[in-house]
Amino acid sequence: MRDMLGREEVVTVEKALELIFKNCSPALIPEVKIKIEGFYQRILSRDICSPEDLPQFARSTVDGFAVDSSDTFGAAEGLPSYLNIAGEILMGEEPSLEIKKGTAAKIATGGMLPKGADAVVMIEHVQQADKKSLRLETEMIEVMKPAAPGENVIQAGEDVRKGDLILKKGHRLRPQDAAALAGIGITEIFVYEKPIVSIISTGDEIVPAGSRLKPGQVRDINSFNLAGLIAEAGGNPVKQGIFSDEYAVIRNIVEKSLEDSSIVLISGGSSVGTKDMTAKIINDIGKPGTLFHGVSIKPGKPMIGGIVNNKPIFGLPGHPAAITVCFEQFIEPVLRKLTGLSENKFRGRKPTVTAKMAKNVASSSGREDHIRVALEERGSEIWANPILGKSGLITTLVKADGIVVIPLRKLGIEQGEIVEVRLF
Amino acid sequence: MRDMLGREEVVTVEKALELIFKNCSPALIPEVKIKIEGFYQRILSRDICSPEDLPQFARSTVDGFAVDSSDTFGAAEGLPSYLNIAGEILMGEEPSLEIKKGTAAKIATGGMLPKGADAVVMIEHVQQADKKSLRLETEMIEVMKPAAPGENVIQAGEDVRKGDLILKKGHRLRPQDAAALAGIGITEIFVYEKPIVSIISTGDEIVPAGSRLKPGQVRDINSFNLAGLIAEAGGNPVKQGIFSDEYAVIRNIVEKSLEDSSIVLISGGSSVGTKDMTAKIINDIGKPGTLFHGVSIKPGKPMIGGIVNNKPIFGLPGHPAAITVCFEQFIEPVLRKLTGLSENKFRGRKPTVTAKMAKNVASSSGREDHIRVALEERGSEIWANPILGKSGLITTLVKADGIVVIPLRKLGIEQGEIVEVRLF
Repeated sequence: MRDMLGREEVVTVEKALELIFKNCSPALIPEVKIKIEGFYQRILSRDICSPEDLPQFARSTVDGFAVDSSDTFGAAEGLPSYLNIAGEILMGEEPSLEIKKGTAAKIATGGMLPKGADAVVMIEHVQQADKKSLRLETEMIEVMKPAAPGENVIQAGEDVRKGDLILKKGHRLRPQDAAALAGIGITEIFVYEKPIVSIISTGDEIVPAGSRLKPGQVRDINSFNLAGLIAEAGGNPVKQGIFSDEYAVIRNIVEKSLEDSSIVLISGGSSVGTKDMTAKIINDIGKPGTLFHGVSIKPGKPMIGGIVNNKPIFGLPGHPAAITVCFEQFIEPVLRKLTGLSENKFRGRKPTVTAKMAKNVASSSGREDHIRVALEERGSEIWANPILGKSGLITTLVKADGIVVIPLRKLGIEQGEIVEVRLF
Repeated sequence: MRDMLGREEVVTVEKALELIFKNCSPALIPEVKIKIEGFYQRILSRDICSPEDLPQFARSTVDGFAVDSSDTFGAAEGLPSYLNIAGEILMGEEPSLEIKKGTAAKIATGGMLPKGADAVVMIEHVQQADKKSLRLETEMIEVMKPAAPGENVIQAGEDVRKGDLILKKGHRLRPQDAAALAGIGITEIFVYEKPIVSIISTGDEIVPAGSRLKPGQVRDINSFNLAGLIAEAGGNPVKQGIFSDEYAVIRNIVEKSLEDSSIVLISGGSSVGTKDMTAKIINDIGKPGTLFHGVSIKPGKPMIGGIVNNKPIFGLPGHPAAITVCFEQFIEPVLRKLTGLSENKFRGRKPTVTAKMAKNVASSSGREDHIRVALEERGSEIWANPILGKSGLITTLVKADGIVVIPLRKLGIEQGEIVEVRLF
């Protein structure tokens, strides 16, 4: 994009994202029915209401004696309530016995309350019973403490009521959510399919990772970084292969990829003029085409973004460190939206750590700087050592534990300044 | 474990972990060779040194002209250096041309430096060339800025030198690490197998998740929570099934599970006396047997821990909320060690968020309280609302966004107090 004087104009990260989201109302990803074993981390495509009560009967939450609470009113250590043992509640079965006035039944945690009982006295508050095994020494117990109605009992439907909305559409399933679904008997659910993100590697010097190199060749590095980042963000990375930097070749594979993909990434394209070619291809394929060409971010300035047929296409810089930064800033927010994940600031957050910057780091105003840092413990403090190598070196990312961002209008970070490190 | 007066003694979380780690030097998990596609998140079982240089040749990091830097010394806008175009460097090929004094060659980002060249002048600092396409308008260029030796060049071996230690044993592979390995041509590596963690569900009232319930029965909830937590922590959860609360039955399946597993979990066991039975089984199977029986933590107090044949066995309380807390506190630290993950405070950290407590929460001294909280945004602030339901309710975990810990010697948290929330 050029300004009125024909100069290339870069946009801010904020503006770039705004342009993408304004021009793209992502098509809904189709849903798919999956079994309970595959629940974890998938995103619900429908609200889930409970088909039944959980639990379906009143259960004891302690080991003790099921009682009619009114039989224990006023009980105290000096003045126990005496109750006859009516029997024992067997686990997993409906009790055949009934609690009549003046009686109690042995019950374990999770046992079903018998008719006539409305509370459970803990074994610790009963005399003449072995506190460890609930074995009885007599046919009568002494209750030393009153039980309120409902005490030590989970009522039928107290955890979940039939019809309750348990989990909302757009929720990502955590271990406890899968457990809750198992509890109410739901073993199949509808989730969103993982959005396909196509990775197109370009460059006449690029060869597959398994190749022996001839002079002038390098192996395809960036598609491995991208595939991992895409999978971590909930997408389905599909490597389309390595393609020559020619208009017809790239245009063809971009158009083909657009058919099945939710997002298309063009990585590399380092030969002269290729950056413009990528922008031209996005423009030529459809509307609105290229939305920005260059972003005020470092590393990652040559980033290209566009939309065709409601699908985002990104042209990524070739430098490895730029790949990570551009992914986190531009692609991940779009991808997350496409996964169907509901807006929630507290879910899927990246781990962070607070540290002190170990060295002065300069930055230019009007540019967002993403500094790779390695963390170091000094006593109880954590210090962040900036890794200042060229962004073309993959090892700068390997040595880093995370990234510190210097915002657009900040001129740098001083030694000792407190920073938030977004951990890899 | 009982003290000298025969009372049951609970231990602190710290002490419980100390007992486990003191009595267990985990056997090394076997390693397995995997292909590059499965790298992500696996843990290296060997150091990785590079078999070659990366890159294998000096590469340009910009679009411009490869030059002999001494030809540009003193160049300035008013006083350019004039250089003849010797030709163009093709991507992915060894240049056949050579840079002689007074000449330059067109080169793109990633191109191989020709003989005689030791620097690259950016296209932006060259006249008589189209800055966007590097097309030339003449056979001569004017260089407006001097290039230092090595400027805009990545030297052969600058990213990685042959023999360099790239990644250490015990490192968990992130996307950028897979990329670096691809770059140096490593497409197969040795990683630790995921430790098998057996889950034994016990209780006569427990039926599989897919079952229709009879009165008194509940579905197996906890094994789903545990399986998800184990997988997230890098383990391989194996559900052994649901077993009756009988000594011979449980002992048999524990012994069988110990054969293949690195950790054995006994979940549930809610009938009266079962907790003691679990401790007895661990003691009867081998040495040192049960190490603690009860921990000063809420929820999770009835937690049992032991070691047999150098393998940890845990008896877990039946309440769903206790499962999550006990897993995070006792099982996860042991499991992480068994995965082979090296000690690094900054890797595999859970996401956290700082919030203000929305209500007073009381706690007893001498007990570590794990409070489930739901987060709420109020303007720019985040508030943590404690979820105070019974720990037997799975929905208290479903409603929660994370957990706030009240340490052993703290008597509670006041409304408005700043807390750190460990997010699920």
